[in-house]
Amino acid sequence: MGMIRILSEQDIEKLFTLKDAIAAVEEAYLQKQEGGGELWPMVFHEFEPGVADLDIKSGNLDSENIFGLKIVSWYGKNPEKNLPALFGTSMIFDLETGAPKAVLNAGAITDLRTGAAGAIGVKYLARKDSKKLVMAGCGALAPYLVAAALYVMPGIEEVTVINPHNPGKAEAELSAITEIVDRLLEKSDAQRTAVITANADAEHTVREADVIITATPSYEPMIAAEWVKEGTHISCVGADMSGKEEIDAEIFRNARVFGDDSRQCFSVGECEIPAKKGYITELDAEIGAVIADASAGRQTENEITIFDSTGIALQDLASAGKILKLAEEQGIGSVVEI
Amino acid sequence: MGMIRILSEQDIEKLFTLKDAIAAVEEAYLQKQEGGGELWPMVFHEFEPGVADLDIKSGNLDSENIFGLKIVSWYGKNPEKNLPALFGTSMIFDLETGAPKAVLNAGAITDLRTGAAGAIGVKYLARKDSKKLVMAGCGALAPYLVAAALYVMPGIEEVTVINPHNPGKAEAELSAITEIVDRLLEKSDAQRTAVITANADAEHTVREADVIITATPSYEPMIAAEWVKEGTHISCVGADMSGKEEIDAEIFRNARVFGDDSRQCFSVGECEIPAKKGYITELDAEIGAVIADASAGRQTENEITIFDSTGIALQDLASAGKILKLAEEQGIGSVVEI
Repeated sequence: MGMIRILSEQDIEKLFTLKDAIAAVEEAYLQKQEGGGELWPMVFHEFEPGVADLDIKSGNLDSENIFGLKIVSWYGKNPEKNLPALFGTSMIFDLETGAPKAVLNAGAITDLRTGAAGAIGVKYLARKDSKKLVMAGCGALAPYLVAAALYVMPGIEEVTVINPHNPGKAEAELSAITEIVDRLLEKSDAQRTAVITANADAEHTVREADVIITATPSYEPMIAAEWVKEGTHISCVGADMSGKEEIDAEIFRNARVFGDDSRQCFSVGECEIPAKKGYITELDAEIGAVIADASAGRQTENEITIFDSTGIALQDLASAGKILKLAEEQGIGSVVEI
Repeated sequence: MGMIRILSEQDIEKLFTLKDAIAAVEEAYLQKQEGGGELWPMVFHEFEPGVADLDIKSGNLDSENIFGLKIVSWYGKNPEKNLPALFGTSMIFDLETGAPKAVLNAGAITDLRTGAAGAIGVKYLARKDSKKLVMAGCGALAPYLVAAALYVMPGIEEVTVINPHNPGKAEAELSAITEIVDRLLEKSDAQRTAVITANADAEHTVREADVIITATPSYEPMIAAEWVKEGTHISCVGADMSGKEEIDAEIFRNARVFGDDSRQCFSVGECEIPAKKGYITELDAEIGAVIADASAGRQTENEITIFDSTGIALQDLASAGKILKLAEEQGIGSVVEI
C-alpha cells in the first residue's frame, strides 16, 4: 500500500543530536500546553512483576503532522542472555491520512530526549547565575542529562557526579560519563568548559549545588531536605513508576513545583509521595506553561524549584518527527514496501 | 540492535491463505479459553467523530511465542483523495525477550481473519446438514465470509447474497464476489460446489436459510425474528461499535448465544442491544469453550444459535505468527536493520 522508512539505532545516532532533542522536547511541551498534541491512554502490561513488563504510549502531535506510538519492553533477565533489558520501538503515521510512515529504534531516541527533558527544567527554572551542577546517579542517562544541562546553561562551571546508593561508583564511571558528555556536546557544535568530578560525599556536594538532577531507580529519598540550599533547582528524572522517590518529600513543602504532565506526575512521578503526605496538592504549572510564558516559572532568586519529568509520548513524537524529516532530506534508513 | 522483517500487502497475499486464517483464528479462540493469550486494554481515539478515528489493539499469544499490537485508522475522507479509508499495521515482538520481530500490513490479514471468524461460528454451531447459506451484506468482507464458510462446511449447496439496505446491490456485486470466493478457495486447495446467487427479497431468502452470516454497517436490524426458522445458525460480524445492530433483538430471546469475547460482545457487539432490552444477560459460552468442548455448543437440531464475532487482537496475533513463520521459511519480505 506504500512505502515505510525503517530507522536503526545507527541511523538515528547519525541524524539526531542533543541540540535537536532539546528543540524537539521543548516543542512537545509547548504543543501540549497549546492543545496541539494529545496523549492517548497508556497501556501497561506486566508479564511477571519485577521480571518483565512493557508499556505502549501513544498520541498525536499537530506541529509535526504525525501520530504514533512507542512500545518499550523491559525484560530484567535479558542481560543474562547478553541481550539488552530494554527494547523500544516507535511507529509514526501521517496525521492527515493515517498512512504509516516510519518505524524507529526508539532506544537511541530515549536517552537523548530524556536528557533534554531534564535540561529544559534547568533552562527555564534554574537561577541564571547557577555555577554548580550535581548529577545524582551515574547510570546510562547521566551523561545525556549532564551534556544537555551544559548545553542549555553554558555558564555552569562545575559538575559533580554523586551516587548516594553506592558512592564509590560515581568515581568509577566518571571517565566514561565525561567521554560521552564531550561527544554529545561536540556533535551539537558545543564545547564543554565545566569541570566534571565525582564525589562520594553526597551531603557535602548537595549543600553547595545550584542545580541538582536526579536519575536513579530509587524507592527511598537520597537527598535530604536540610541539604538543599535556597534558590536551588532540582530536575527529578528517575521516578516513572508508583512508589519511586528520589528526594525528601519535605523539600516539596516550600518549593515551587513544575512537571511535564500533571496527571502523570501525581500518579507515577516524584510528586506522588509528597502528595500522599499532603505536602502538595497540585503543580504550580506544567512546564509547557512556563515555556509559553516565563512569568509562570521561577519568581524569586531564593525559592527552590522542582521539575518532575516523567516522560510523555509527545517527547518521542516530536523527536521522531524531527528525525524523520532529517532522514528524508539525507536519504538515511531503509525504505521498503509495506 | 537487530533485524526486523517488513511484510507488505503483496507478501502477505502470497503467503497467507483462508485455510491458514481459519487455523489461526481457531487457535486464537482456543488459546483465549485456555489462558494462553491475553487482550490488553484497547486504545480508541476519535480525531473527529464520524470523520476519522483509530484504535490500537494489543496482547500476547503464548502458542506463537509473540506479543504485539495492531493499529487501525479510519479516515472517512481518504477515498476523495484516492487513498484507502482504512490503514492497518501490526507490529510483532518476541515474547521471550521483548525484541521486535516484524511489521506487517494488517489490511491483508484483516479480511481473511474476519472471514475465518464468521466461518468458525458456522463450523462449530451450524447444523451439520445445513444446505442453504445466506450472506447478508455485499461489501468487502462478503466473499471472505462466504469462502470461509464453504471451506469449513463443504456440504452447503446454495449461497444467496442479500443486501437489505440496498437490495439491488447484491445482484450488482454478485460476479465480483463469486470471483473472489473462487480464488480464495482455490488458493486453499478447495473447490466451490455451491451455487452462488443474489436475491432482492430478504424475507423470502432468510426464511429458507440454514445458516446466515451478517456483515453490514447497520444501526437497525435488517433481519426480523419471524423470518428465522428453527435450527438456524447466525454468525453476526458487522457490529463492532456501540449502537450497531444487524438482527432483531427478539431473536436472542430464544437463541443460544456465543461470542468471541464476552465483554466486547456486550459493549460493542451484536449482544449490546438485546442485553439493554433485557433479553439476554450473558453468553451461553465463548466460542473458545465450544472449540475446547463441543458439548458446550449446539445442543438440539431445533435451537437457533448466534455467534457474535466482534474481532479480538488474538486473531491478528495468531495470524501474524503463522505468516511470520511462513515468511521466514520462504524468505519473503524485506529484512532490514532496526
